[in-house]
Amino acid sequence: MAVYTHVPAEDIDAFLARYDAGRLVSAKGIAEGVENSNYLLETTGPDGQAGGGQRYILTLYEKRVDEADLPFFMDLLDHLGARGCRVPRFIADRDGRRLQQLAGRPACLIEFLTGISVTEPTPAQARAAGAALGSLHKAAQGFAGERRNALDKAGWHALAARCGEDLDQIQPGLAPRVADELAWLDAHWPGDLPHSVIHADLFPDNVLMLGDEVTGLIDFYFSCTDVRAYDLAVTHSAWCFSNDGATWFGERAAALGAGYAEAHGLTEAERAAFPALCRGAALRFLLTRAYDWINTPADALVTRKDPLAYLRRLDFYAKADPAELLGA
Amino acid sequence: MAVYTHVPAEDIDAFLARYDAGRLVSAKGIAEGVENSNYLLETTGPDGQAGGGQRYILTLYEKRVDEADLPFFMDLLDHLGARGCRVPRFIADRDGRRLQQLAGRPACLIEFLTGISVTEPTPAQARAAGAALGSLHKAAQGFAGERRNALDKAGWHALAARCGEDLDQIQPGLAPRVADELAWLDAHWPGDLPHSVIHADLFPDNVLMLGDEVTGLIDFYFSCTDVRAYDLAVTHSAWCFSNDGATWFGERAAALGAGYAEAHGLTEAERAAFPALCRGAALRFLLTRAYDWINTPADALVTRKDPLAYLRRLDFYAKADPAELLGA
Repeated sequence: MAVYTHVPAEDIDAFLARYDAGRLVSAKGIAEGVENSNYLLETTGPDGQAGGGQRYILTLYEKRVDEADLPFFMDLLDHLGARGCRVPRFIADRDGRRLQQLAGRPACLIEFLTGISVTEPTPAQARAAGAALGSLHKAAQGFAGERRNALDKAGWHALAARCGEDLDQIQPGLAPRVADELAWLDAHWPGDLPHSVIHADLFPDNVLMLGDEVTGLIDFYFSCTDVRAYDLAVTHSAWCFSNDGATWFGERAAALGAGYAEAHGLTEAERAAFPALCRGAALRFLLTRAYDWINTPADALVTRKDPLAYLRRLDFYAKADPAELLGA
Repeated sequence: MAVYTHVPAEDIDAFLARYDAGRLVSAKGIAEGVENSNYLLETTGPDGQAGGGQRYILTLYEKRVDEADLPFFMDLLDHLGARGCRVPRFIADRDGRRLQQLAGRPACLIEFLTGISVTEPTPAQARAAGAALGSLHKAAQGFAGERRNALDKAGWHALAARCGEDLDQIQPGLAPRVADELAWLDAHWPGDLPHSVIHADLFPDNVLMLGDEVTGLIDFYFSCTDVRAYDLAVTHSAWCFSNDGATWFGERAAALGAGYAEAHGLTEAERAAFPALCRGAALRFLLTRAYDWINTPADALVTRKDPLAYLRRLDFYAKADPAELLGA
């Protein structure tokens, strides 16, 4: 959520000269996404007309994104875009290259999409997000690329081990609570549900909207191959609670489920496993936030997100009536 | 250089509804300027047409800007804008108000200007910057507003006292060097040069350009009433050296001086005092950077700028042939 690498405007202009994108007329470092450096560029557009207001995102990849994964993301967004999903495509230069180097970092020019990220989704917006996720899953069929989910259940075990007893510094009793939950998930995690490419991080931040319409799904840097319905569980945990996890919004959840059902739908087995998938999703964000909390100085560049906001979601899912989760 | 206050997009849209500015279609937190929170907004434009790509800057004022100073800045930019200077004007809402509250902060909607900030100015660009500064000084004539420069010579004394012996932690001997320089400036500071409203911080960052043309002067939050030629000295110290202060670019300086002379010009007395004004400018940035260096944790949100880059400029000015400073 900051600009880590400063790139002189002259260098951005020289970088753009490799593309049919026009000349640079504005460059603003923007604070968004995972830990990359992002610039919002405006150019004269391919026809060289000043004031054309053509916009692009320039991303420089910092530590959290592995350069070897970039072709997977590029191919995925091409595949989804070609099938009607509103996703930001990576732009190729005149030689067909999408991956460049700039300021010593891997760097890409990416399509800019309009739309704003809502903070308090209405049920209509949650429904649109559910439908967009379903459409994404539909469009992902036939995509040949695969990427392992580093934050799957085995990944949660590894993260919990690295946090160790420090979890109890966040809240006394959190370490045994996490151990118990991992044991429960080991016993109840569904083994044979349909897999697919999933977004795996579809928070409201990563959905651009105009009114009730989705205009873009962004930030695919956690996308991977995993249990398809787990993607809906992640989205559910992100859209259906107050930020601190203390309040559950059943109407949003029902709308999210209805939107997803309309565009894609869940099998009976997926529906039956949904509570366990939600518990997994809540534990995943609890653990990554806890790890960052333990390992990030309180005054560092990155804002620490409260892990307990996801413990509250986990508590909710562990006690919830399964039927109520998707308003079925 | 970060976004300190997060404003939900819904709240920005509601804020915009007070203006004839259209509906929000994009909002990106941008990393720029002094310690305010800035968003680059895109709206449908006053005619409500989506895709119009009308852009604005939304600024929320954090600790460094005193709300009581905002009317001075607003009136100044109106005055300058009405006289042909390319400066970002504060936009009034339908009730004529330019100052609002948003997310608990003073907040303003401001005109967006295209253009990029150069990092390594060419002589032609330095000339354009000098001319833009001269035009600003010309346009400022007749402006009735006044604002004391908190970072005048008395302010440097106060800052040096607050830094105290900690200056020697930055570099051994820096504390007595600063004391000697302050004594020299007390003895040589020109008392009777023309005063004017000055920008006081016209770094390349604060000049937007397209090619060799200045398209905007921005970030007036240090503007104040002070010795007019001191503004050129500040600009000189910012434009005519490598970032680290180790290399002096005489061609840029000559061009900057020529551009200023063309648009406004220096009196003989200003020209004679220019070396002292440059020493003052170098000491001013040395001291504010030193103060921040001493008082900012190394891993904090704000990037610390090297005070010694301005000690090197000070060393240069103290030894320079006065005739060479502006290439006269």
